Amino acid sequence: MSATETEYLTLLGQRAKAASFILASLTAKQKNLLLATIADHLAQRKDDILQANAQDIIAAKQSGLTEAMIDRLMLDEGRLGGIIADIDNVIALADPVGKEAESRVLDNGLRLTRRSVPLGVVGVIYEARPNVTVDIAVLALKTGNAVILRGGKETLTSNKVLSEVIRDALVSLDLPKDAVQLIDSPERSLVSGLLRLDKYVDMIIPRGGQNLQRLCAEQSSIPVILGGIGICHLLVDKQADLVRAIDVIANAKVQRPTVCNALDTLLIHQQIAAEFIPNIASHLHSLGVRFHACAIALPYLDGLGFDVTPAHDESFSTEWLSLTLGIKVVNDIDEAVEHIRQYSTGHSEAILTDNIHTASDFMNQVDSAAVYVNASTRFTDGSQFGLGAEVAVSTQKLHARGPMALDALTTYKWLAWGDYTCRQ
Amino acid sequence: MSATETEYLTLLGQRAKAASFILASLTAKQKNLLLATIADHLAQRKDDILQANAQDIIAAKQSGLTEAMIDRLMLDEGRLGGIIADIDNVIALADPVGKEAESRVLDNGLRLTRRSVPLGVVGVIYEARPNVTVDIAVLALKTGNAVILRGGKETLTSNKVLSEVIRDALVSLDLPKDAVQLIDSPERSLVSGLLRLDKYVDMIIPRGGQNLQRLCAEQSSIPVILGGIGICHLLVDKQADLVRAIDVIANAKVQRPTVCNALDTLLIHQQIAAEFIPNIASHLHSLGVRFHACAIALPYLDGLGFDVTPAHDESFSTEWLSLTLGIKVVNDIDEAVEHIRQYSTGHSEAILTDNIHTASDFMNQVDSAAVYVNASTRFTDGSQFGLGAEVAVSTQKLHARGPMALDALTTYKWLAWGDYTCRQ
Repeated sequence: MSATETEYLTLLGQRAKAASFILASLTAKQKNLLLATIADHLAQRKDDILQANAQDIIAAKQSGLTEAMIDRLMLDEGRLGGIIADIDNVIALADPVGKEAESRVLDNGLRLTRRSVPLGVVGVIYEARPNVTVDIAVLALKTGNAVILRGGKETLTSNKVLSEVIRDALVSLDLPKDAVQLIDSPERSLVSGLLRLDKYVDMIIPRGGQNLQRLCAEQSSIPVILGGIGICHLLVDKQADLVRAIDVIANAKVQRPTVCNALDTLLIHQQIAAEFIPNIASHLHSLGVRFHACAIALPYLDGLGFDVTPAHDESFSTEWLSLTLGIKVVNDIDEAVEHIRQYSTGHSEAILTDNIHTASDFMNQVDSAAVYVNASTRFTDGSQFGLGAEVAVSTQKLHARGPMALDALTTYKWLAWGDYTCRQ
Repeated sequence: MSATETEYLTLLGQRAKAASFILASLTAKQKNLLLATIADHLAQRKDDILQANAQDIIAAKQSGLTEAMIDRLMLDEGRLGGIIADIDNVIALADPVGKEAESRVLDNGLRLTRRSVPLGVVGVIYEARPNVTVDIAVLALKTGNAVILRGGKETLTSNKVLSEVIRDALVSLDLPKDAVQLIDSPERSLVSGLLRLDKYVDMIIPRGGQNLQRLCAEQSSIPVILGGIGICHLLVDKQADLVRAIDVIANAKVQRPTVCNALDTLLIHQQIAAEFIPNIASHLHSLGVRFHACAIALPYLDGLGFDVTPAHDESFSTEWLSLTLGIKVVNDIDEAVEHIRQYSTGHSEAILTDNIHTASDFMNQVDSAAVYVNASTRFTDGSQFGLGAEVAVSTQKLHARGPMALDALTTYKWLAWGDYTCRQ
């Protein structure tokens, strides 16, 4: 990183930290007014935002991005309306800041409490979708945090306008505009620099693929919330209802195959493999699913009228994010659990079984953020869990695991009142 | 790191992870029996342990360690008895594993709960005191975690015997001995290697000085709990009771100057500086305290009959861990808060004031793990806070902040029971 870049990031960090102290003192009412003001400003500046996005789209087409990718970058009146409407949902949520717990008077008279407070400064590194710029800024401000945003280069023009609109809204209420700052250069070295800004930044949230997650885990001196990568498994036990199983598996695989809680590997108990595999495979094939199958499963997939890829080294260590599905036959639940321990990213796993002991064993032995009995993996999601807002889906074990709600953007401090109290 | 070292650490990691799955399935009763068995084995093997420690002490003397340092390494019958007695205290604590929260039935019939579970594998890097080997192994096992220990080279012989005794206790109950493993070589590269073992290790706790903390923050790809470094401040407000203040400040500074919650910098409101500084300084001097004072404080320290060091660049950024104290006069509470924001390590800060508004402002504006009104900073401690056991004192904001109790060695997973439930 160049000296200029270091200086630039240090300034960003200092400004964010200074802003965070002011944000931390705001009441829930003041923060909700801020969010409403941001929604107003976004609505008023609609044309500027769509114009900036149109520039990003032209550049994306020129650089040959796929249609699917371009669709992800694209904002139109409807989508922008949705982003603005979502702000109202966040306003309606309870403020997790200022809750007190563990309050008590100690034997020596010291009155102790543990109060929830904002984290301070959150750094968010994300790709593609420009809605994240607004979403994450709004969630951070709702919880009294300053935020440093680093979006993808494909939406830099959109992100610049979106963050400027949010900063204008802050200024209109005499609040520090540096509560929301965008890294406005696509230089990759700035990501590495952001990850070492531990003097000012309290948490890094990478929202993107495996490479970004790995980069953050390896380079960051700031605590990182890893997540959003799901190699998800579903085990069909020998005692599952093999008729009802079909809809659940189809739901897990097909409903939205491009997301992290979609099914990647179907594990099938060997005792029902001969009966079940042709049925489920035919059904999923009719929905457009392709298969990578283990050597034991392959014969059962023969003669169904479609090709099947024999599972190779990476078939079970790939998050498909598409209509491909791995199929593996297991001898028993132990082998299924072993497979999951080896290949899972700790996101979401499910078992279908009517045996209560098998269900319980699976839940106890599988160490993932979400474990399901007789349900689709697709439920791992903040709004499905009824958590209100989703900041990210964590697959690590510290601070927050699974869908992270607003309270994951807070920490706490211990407060104690004495009467000139000394330790004995 | 050499290929042999990589292989060695990978094996350690794999064994720890495998052991962790078995530990996670133990009941509180089984875990308490294990702890009692460890206490028995330690008592039975007392002579072996003291003999090993005697070897470490001889080596320490030969290599010229200070008396104070050698005292920290030393075990005798009394100290070993204390270590064993502490195990009983941990047995008496409630098991934080298996608590359920957020339990509810969602609109779609899915029954959801968030269950506390062990973290898995904890890596602990520590220096000097061999009691940590037992303490941390016991706390990890109590919470169903496997642990990889990396102690200081000065106590390697003691640690080898202590960990072997614990492993024998595990084996005597048919539990996996690899639940507790010691890195049995003093090579520094093994610390770096441990910090990259993210495939197997879920959390790193460094218990040691600033250099170790920094190394872990910078090199670890595993989440790290930083802590135990306290540059602690106490502000004497213009409205403090200047008579009662003296005992509190003496308590914060003198009671145990070598620990992290001892006072490092005394901030004094300018309106009471002339009156208070000579009084507090004379009293502290009589207790053996030396001073580094800012330019405004210096004249008030003149003619008291002892020398005072003018504060230099590092006077306020040093954790003294000794009877030295920084003194700085501030214009008002804002300047005090600014000073704390600049120099504090986020551990413990205090204000002495009889003004309720000033107290409240200080508590709200100071962003440290523990903030005190009219009390000594010395209370930041798991047992003082009534938390039972103290794993570490965290000065970071994620996962745990301040004194960390047993529940900081747990995470949670979301469990959901459906009836072949699909997402709409």
